Amino acid sequence: MRIGVLTGGGDCPGLNAVIRAAVRKGVGVYGHEFVGFRDGWRGPLEGETMPLDIQAVRGILPRGGTILGSSRTNPMKIEGGVEKIKDNLAAMGVDALIAIGGEDTLGVAKQLFDRGVSVVGVPKTIDNDLNATDYTFGFDTAVNIAMEAIDRLHTTAESHHRALICEVMGRHAGWIALHAGMAAGANVILIPEKPFDIDRVCAYVESRFKTRYAPIIVVAEGAHPIEGQMTLQDGELDAFGHVKLGGIGEMLAKEIEKRTGKEARTTVLGHIQRGGTPTAFDRVLATRFGLRAIDAVHDGEFGAMVALRGTDIVTVGLDEATKELKTVPVSRYAEAEVFFG
Amino acid sequence: MRIGVLTGGGDCPGLNAVIRAAVRKGVGVYGHEFVGFRDGWRGPLEGETMPLDIQAVRGILPRGGTILGSSRTNPMKIEGGVEKIKDNLAAMGVDALIAIGGEDTLGVAKQLFDRGVSVVGVPKTIDNDLNATDYTFGFDTAVNIAMEAIDRLHTTAESHHRALICEVMGRHAGWIALHAGMAAGANVILIPEKPFDIDRVCAYVESRFKTRYAPIIVVAEGAHPIEGQMTLQDGELDAFGHVKLGGIGEMLAKEIEKRTGKEARTTVLGHIQRGGTPTAFDRVLATRFGLRAIDAVHDGEFGAMVALRGTDIVTVGLDEATKELKTVPVSRYAEAEVFFG
Amino acid sequence: MRIGVLTGGGDCPGLNAVIRAAVRKGVGVYGHEFVGFRDGWRGPLEGETMPLDIQAVRGILPRGGTILGSSRTNPMKIEGGVEKIKDNLAAMGVDALIAIGGEDTLGVAKQLFDRGVSVVGVPKTIDNDLNATDYTFGFDTAVNIAMEAIDRLHTTAESHHRALICEVMGRHAGWIALHAGMAAGANVILIPEKPFDIDRVCAYVESRFKTRYAPIIVVAEGAHPIEGQMTLQDGELDAFGHVKLGGIGEMLAKEIEKRTGKEARTTVLGHIQRGGTPTAFDRVLATRFGLRAIDAVHDGEFGAMVALRGTDIVTVGLDEATKELKTVPVSRYAEAEVFFG
Amino acid sequence: MRIGVLTGGGDCPGLNAVIRAAVRKGVGVYGHEFVGFRDGWRGPLEGETMPLDIQAVRGILPRGGTILGSSRTNPMKIEGGVEKIKDNLAAMGVDALIAIGGEDTLGVAKQLFDRGVSVVGVPKTIDNDLNATDYTFGFDTAVNIAMEAIDRLHTTAESHHRALICEVMGRHAGWIALHAGMAAGANVILIPEKPFDIDRVCAYVESRFKTRYAPIIVVAEGAHPIEGQMTLQDGELDAFGHVKLGGIGEMLAKEIEKRTGKEARTTVLGHIQRGGTPTAFDRVLATRFGLRAIDAVHDGEFGAMVALRGTDIVTVGLDEATKELKTVPVSRYAEAEVFFG
Repeated sequence: MRIGVLTGGGDCPGLNAVIRAAVRKGVGVYGHEFVGFRDGWRGPLEGETMPLDIQAVRGILPRGGTILGSSRTNPMKIEGGVEKIKDNLAAMGVDALIAIGGEDTLGVAKQLFDRGVSVVGVPKTIDNDLNATDYTFGFDTAVNIAMEAIDRLHTTAESHHRALICEVMGRHAGWIALHAGMAAGANVILIPEKPFDIDRVCAYVESRFKTRYAPIIVVAEGAHPIEGQMTLQDGELDAFGHVKLGGIGEMLAKEIEKRTGKEARTTVLGHIQRGGTPTAFDRVLATRFGLRAIDAVHDGEFGAMVALRGTDIVTVGLDEATKELKTVPVSRYAEAEVFFG
Repeated sequence: MRIGVLTGGGDCPGLNAVIRAAVRKGVGVYGHEFVGFRDGWRGPLEGETMPLDIQAVRGILPRGGTILGSSRTNPMKIEGGVEKIKDNLAAMGVDALIAIGGEDTLGVAKQLFDRGVSVVGVPKTIDNDLNATDYTFGFDTAVNIAMEAIDRLHTTAESHHRALICEVMGRHAGWIALHAGMAAGANVILIPEKPFDIDRVCAYVESRFKTRYAPIIVVAEGAHPIEGQMTLQDGELDAFGHVKLGGIGEMLAKEIEKRTGKEARTTVLGHIQRGGTPTAFDRVLATRFGLRAIDAVHDGEFGAMVALRGTDIVTVGLDEATKELKTVPVSRYAEAEVFFG
Repeated sequence: MRIGVLTGGGDCPGLNAVIRAAVRKGVGVYGHEFVGFRDGWRGPLEGETMPLDIQAVRGILPRGGTILGSSRTNPMKIEGGVEKIKDNLAAMGVDALIAIGGEDTLGVAKQLFDRGVSVVGVPKTIDNDLNATDYTFGFDTAVNIAMEAIDRLHTTAESHHRALICEVMGRHAGWIALHAGMAAGANVILIPEKPFDIDRVCAYVESRFKTRYAPIIVVAEGAHPIEGQMTLQDGELDAFGHVKLGGIGEMLAKEIEKRTGKEARTTVLGHIQRGGTPTAFDRVLATRFGLRAIDAVHDGEFGAMVALRGTDIVTVGLDEATKELKTVPVSRYAEAEVFFG
Repeated sequence: MRIGVLTGGGDCPGLNAVIRAAVRKGVGVYGHEFVGFRDGWRGPLEGETMPLDIQAVRGILPRGGTILGSSRTNPMKIEGGVEKIKDNLAAMGVDALIAIGGEDTLGVAKQLFDRGVSVVGVPKTIDNDLNATDYTFGFDTAVNIAMEAIDRLHTTAESHHRALICEVMGRHAGWIALHAGMAAGANVILIPEKPFDIDRVCAYVESRFKTRYAPIIVVAEGAHPIEGQMTLQDGELDAFGHVKLGGIGEMLAKEIEKRTGKEARTTVLGHIQRGGTPTAFDRVLATRFGLRAIDAVHDGEFGAMVALRGTDIVTVGLDEATKELKTVPVSRYAEAEVFFG
């Protein structure tokens, strides 16, 4: 068989480990052949490929990013895009496709599968917000990077008298904020799932200043105050009337300073959360995903997506990927609240 | 309620996170009181305690080791030991006990529970060899430390022409070797569950030298060759005729040099695998274990042990802890074998 | 002797190592006694102290921040401040003072010395901009943190097609930007010492996009464009007509997007650069500074400041600390320019 | 010009940074051409080369090891070796050579220079034992790796009651032991320069057990007891009657157990100290060495070796490299002794 591989969406530590595992087993055990598509769906759409043999995957296991490149190109938004991909795959003699990506990438994979293309999906979301799998690779790395940064902030909080705010990734789900905040002993954690009460946040800040050193607040980029509470300027709202992404940390600092009279400083971790070498957890999970994906291809299990359940790698339908967002349940947030203040 | 806490057995990153979480919720949410027992079962046996309040658990979340100290004292091996503990707990007004430890510690906990003591267990094994839980804290940290060390060995292997052997923890189960080896791209992984064929190991070594740079072999301390294959000296065997613990790495190096004519060097990671600050995974898991343990105490769920199943923290019977060793199944080892050679 | 110790200004990894070394040698070798002043000059000003004995300095070597707390309180800006300190020191029987801090803190130390107080200074500046010493502690830690962050950005730059900007500390001197940028392979480094030509920066960005993956630009917070080149809004300028601190990264991203049509993203590292455990270099340097400072006190070498020259710890006059800013010389910047583009 | 580059001796983080810097400036600024020789002196001896252009040095800055490979091949121990190298260089049109290595490698470089070959040397010794330069690259990385390992041992020492011994590199000079031990708060540091008194070591061990938690002893592999003190077995001595290299840690553990009755455990760090990504200090130093080396070649400054003096990169004669070993002076060891016990 001749198998195409592509990676779509934002980059994520572990992508290379998936590619390597699929190629190593595909070539070494099954005797298949691979072709790499460049930059997500742009590759099959424009027929842009790169060699993907044992040599190409040497040494990539510990490397972040993706040797295939990535993009947010969405063939479903392009006139005749899906057909063009089908034609290109046929023309290049590609028998099957492994698509590694998030909701968007896997949504396209599902469409292609419905139109007869042999596709297997590998879920990727650094935010851990995919309902079909217990965890995805990249999340553990992001949480550790954020935790280490917050660990560092503690020493500044201890020595000075300033509230410190750390804004982490998480537009729709607060998993990174929850885990990094719990792991690093945050005094307040704010997540998109639960609009926060700024009065309560300020009460935590003030009580913390009294009992110990300055508080550390971890806030997901998608967190927002309860309706009507913080008077926002026009420029601070997006089209939906929500706080603009990326700005919540700064806004919170201003509001805390205004309300409590204490200095507050924000650190926005940004891209460093998704870069660099993956943790052991992510390298093992990504490797196992890659192995299971090539097994699925070999066994003709198309339309499937690999997933983690407990300690097992299983397959589920590709439609599972896009069905429902996995958000932080109330019970998990309640665990973290024990440590607030 | 007045609740005693103790930590037994070898140390493990995350112990302090368990203690902190139990105390923070126990005091802050339930209004209980705590007493710390020193050095595992030696504490209640000899009535040696330390204060364990909110102040005592401040700042310990990121710290490895255990503020309570630990030991391998086993009251069951001491005449009247269990009775003495019962008496001491009664005399000190301790209503319930949280015992954090491995098979031995939890075995004693089970005995005490059977004799009427209110105990809740928290499983601890850096080797991840406890069947009742998907993972225990400390394992992820150990795997990451080992992985980073093996990552470093790659550059030496690349620049020189020597087989490099890395001996990691794992007397009865090869989980650390398996995960660290997969994560760091080991060329051979040897685990206690599967006696290795030295001829095959040497064949991997030789083929690797031909195709790429020098091989890296990860070996669990409890791994051993198939019967009769390596001629061992008397001093190299323990009472059971097995290779002495701690020596397999060195022995392997000698055997590989003898058989292949290539130089081989061994690194024994030892205690550094169980020290230092825990990873985010371990801090979150340990915190959740601590929270669930104090809930179990509060709810009178004695004789229970907390455990991870998928992403949920559940409770199982204390006897689960000692029932069966969780070893690496053939299917998991087969995943790693794809990358051998 | 009874010796007071204080730490002033922004926090810096290694402060605790200085304190520990001075106390360990002062008590253990010389038999002196110590008193800790809280929060920089606020301590002696308001007579706020804490115990500072062997017990107090246990375990602080690897910890960032300062157990003494810090502040920017400047007694010279307070009516009668210096006299009040003199009186308080006399009243408390403090024979000598070790002042650990930057230009401001050491400037006050010099004033006090001129008025008869027995002071020894230890230089602290995370920016490495003190002319009297080859390096100060904290700088190496900050550079490593920044380097690791930039290392991580490379994988995102490699996988996507966006210019990535990393803003690091350095208001008046570009040492952190220079070292972190050289260490992490930045494609452009912008420092306060050399106003940048935005046309040239954009030319580098465009050529880099053509030859390899997306560029990484490291910019010191105090960097600024050559006069008149970027049209700044009123709100973006400070009282001196300079780009406001903290904003140069964002401004650069906007300008690059506007001029090149390429996406650009900024990461501002902020406080995490000065927090957390110090590197070995900083721990050793800080320890040696502390040892030398207590020797100076013991030997009555007052008005002196410790400094690193080559591999030696020497003493220089306290006035050296404030004499001249150590900026990046043209020759050092030229080294980095070899790798631009 | 056509310039050859080789790396000899044990590997060392930063080698690739030297190579990259020389090539980047040599090609980009001076327009020279490069050829890589494989495996140290074996390359020019056997005429084995690899391409060394801008493409070849891409992405190698953060990578440990050396892309050129290394060996301990010594042409001076081979009949006609030096002549053969001269002939090969001439035949390949190599105008000048950059030799990166330790005492042995640079000794050969000196010989070649004396016989008319245009050579520039770059000093490399992970042990930091070269007198001609303040520091060499690789040392800072090794010290940080050892420090982190010792940091981890502290938590085990704190929780259990065992003396922990950490054996680090350093056959003839104790720099790594000294710096890592000071940085990580070792309770005793043993170095080759000063034969240790086992009675005193045991006294430290016993007093430490009384005052705090278990002691941590850092020992350089080349350290040894004072004459006649520890009764050594024949197998434990080398040809010179010294303790065999690599064995001092284990021997010390046995001796401490025998004399104090306390358990003792040894960790031998081994190869992981010289692998993996370099620290910022080493990357910057190595880069500057590479830049200065190509300047020296370009300027015809042959027979020179680059060196660090304070913060400056200078050149000294190649013979400086082999003149004298830089050992730890008594004054530096005395600094560390303040913290013993």
